[in-house]
Amino acid sequence: MLVIDNMRDVRDMARGATLLGTGGGGDPYIGELFIGAQMQRGRYGKVIDPAEIDDDAFLVSIFHLGAPPPFVEQLVSEKLMIRILERAQEVAGRNIDALICAEIGGFNSTMPIALSAISGIPAVDADGIGRAFPRMEMTTFSIWGVSGSPALLMDEFGNETIIRAKDERTCENMCRAVCSSLGAHLAGTGFQMSGRQMKECAVLGTVTQTLEIGRTIREAREGAEDVFAELLRCLNKDGRYARILFDGKIVDIVREIRDGWHWGRITMRGLQNPDDEFTVELQNEFSVARLNGRTVTIVPDLISVLDRESGEPRTAESLSYGQRVKVLGYSANEILRRPKSLEFVGPKCFGIDEEFRPVEELTAGT
Amino acid sequence: MLVIDNMRDVRDMARGATLLGTGGGGDPYIGELFIGAQMQRGRYGKVIDPAEIDDDAFLVSIFHLGAPPPFVEQLVSEKLMIRILERAQEVAGRNIDALICAEIGGFNSTMPIALSAISGIPAVDADGIGRAFPRMEMTTFSIWGVSGSPALLMDEFGNETIIRAKDERTCENMCRAVCSSLGAHLAGTGFQMSGRQMKECAVLGTVTQTLEIGRTIREAREGAEDVFAELLRCLNKDGRYARILFDGKIVDIVREIRDGWHWGRITMRGLQNPDDEFTVELQNEFSVARLNGRTVTIVPDLISVLDRESGEPRTAESLSYGQRVKVLGYSANEILRRPKSLEFVGPKCFGIDEEFRPVEELTAGT
Repeated sequence: MLVIDNMRDVRDMARGATLLGTGGGGDPYIGELFIGAQMQRGRYGKVIDPAEIDDDAFLVSIFHLGAPPPFVEQLVSEKLMIRILERAQEVAGRNIDALICAEIGGFNSTMPIALSAISGIPAVDADGIGRAFPRMEMTTFSIWGVSGSPALLMDEFGNETIIRAKDERTCENMCRAVCSSLGAHLAGTGFQMSGRQMKECAVLGTVTQTLEIGRTIREAREGAEDVFAELLRCLNKDGRYARILFDGKIVDIVREIRDGWHWGRITMRGLQNPDDEFTVELQNEFSVARLNGRTVTIVPDLISVLDRESGEPRTAESLSYGQRVKVLGYSANEILRRPKSLEFVGPKCFGIDEEFRPVEELTAGT
Repeated sequence: MLVIDNMRDVRDMARGATLLGTGGGGDPYIGELFIGAQMQRGRYGKVIDPAEIDDDAFLVSIFHLGAPPPFVEQLVSEKLMIRILERAQEVAGRNIDALICAEIGGFNSTMPIALSAISGIPAVDADGIGRAFPRMEMTTFSIWGVSGSPALLMDEFGNETIIRAKDERTCENMCRAVCSSLGAHLAGTGFQMSGRQMKECAVLGTVTQTLEIGRTIREAREGAEDVFAELLRCLNKDGRYARILFDGKIVDIVREIRDGWHWGRITMRGLQNPDDEFTVELQNEFSVARLNGRTVTIVPDLISVLDRESGEPRTAESLSYGQRVKVLGYSANEILRRPKSLEFVGPKCFGIDEEFRPVEELTAGT
């Protein structure tokens, strides 16, 4: 069991979660503040290894639903966190043995740690995406048989909704609609599962991975080592593959909010070779990266944009004209690359008319 | 107790409900078909006098939520009606003693009768509006202390939502949002109340009133009597007031769907005096009638447009250029005219910058 008992670890985890957020997922900074406030009161979140969870244990996911800006304006209160846990147990009719993160990329990575600190219930070292995605039916939980229903949504004002939907896509649509009607900012629980289901459906090891990624970047920076060399060493293991796709300067950013999505395109020019044009498409998260029009990484593989000097991962909102950045391509966890998963998280789900090809194949020989 | 055991009564009730719908509320014809199908199987809806309900009896409202067109395309199944009753009892944790109509004007008038026929549970002779209004917080239930929460919404496909909202306006917003996300067509229950609350909060006698109104129009027509004279005789009693505001021809109709409302204006010219211009503003229901620019009836008082020859009440959708019509002004039930009610159903709630004045006062001396 890992006890999150110092702010350096929390900040490292937030940094790692931003990288796995691939431009989206919301900034984990607010979660950092929340966990810090708990820590000052001597309450520490606990992270438990999936193998230590009994097969018949009862887990639920806790998440924030909605647009990040209203969330920044108004923090989730401790009172709401306690209330949602109580109600989740009432709705399920049993006690919760462990919490599981819905989405490790971005803000939602901090929710189970924060609730663990408040409640003493451990968070399991796993999540339902291994990165960030915009919709519930894109979680490995949904794809591999754990339903989002009943989903319990609550806000600070005492409004509560319990949704039982016939399918995961409808569940997402209903949750999103309730969220909009209440001002785009809710706390929720869902994805009730057994320990056995968690071991089969979740992306494992992702909470500790955020810590490892964040720590690697910070330590390399502090030690004046090559941040990117260390980062690639950290990511290139356990059958996964990472490489720097591009080193350049942002020359154009187009953004648009349409159909409830944050759309955009980031265009860069090479620092070594200014003729090279590199584009990254944004659909809440980065979906496809192309070098001179040729695809080099595509969803569900991860694309992250990092500050060229510090190696700090950037959210899409924080990018601006003239910034010098490096773009990372990183293979998704194998569970996301299985054919059944690709039906829900592959390029076609983002309106991109290409087949998925692994980043290691797309960049081979370059 | 009144047993609805013949289609003539059902059609009379639908006619009366259309008049009380004041242009909106949806066409009760679909409900007529539904009740007819039950009748063919020997199942009859029962309507019980409010005075016969025990003070500690348990009542809930049953209603249809959403736009009428999808409803016409796909009927509510008997299976859904049974399921929603079962679930309402589960959510409440007790058996339902009587059903109560949420809105007597228009389509929703038929829901409790239909469910009564299916389940054997009686419908009480009362409703929560006495006419039609577009929003939940405009019911006398909401205004006088019976909450819409918990509201249970279900569709044919097994999607279910339970909403507990901090206030009635939020409850309406949340229900509406879920409804839109599921294709604008749901069955719902809510407004759990005791027999005592029903007697204090509801508009009483409105189910039998629909029958009386519809029967009066039909019998006058069949007997070649003056339909409008008979109708006015039927409405002008028990302290209420009705009169014909205008006799004319429709010369212009403007309609618009905006902000989720059906807006419009019907303009007529007088048949006796062609210089007279009469307008009726539409906001789902008719909200204000003006003769040559001077207000003659305004919400919550009722405005109904009827065919000039047959006396058949018309929904706003069924009006068209050239039709010859008579416009009826009818005082609202006294509960809607109380100052506290006017805060929720008065002219300002429809964006009309006028104070409420009773129809009998507005038309005095004309």
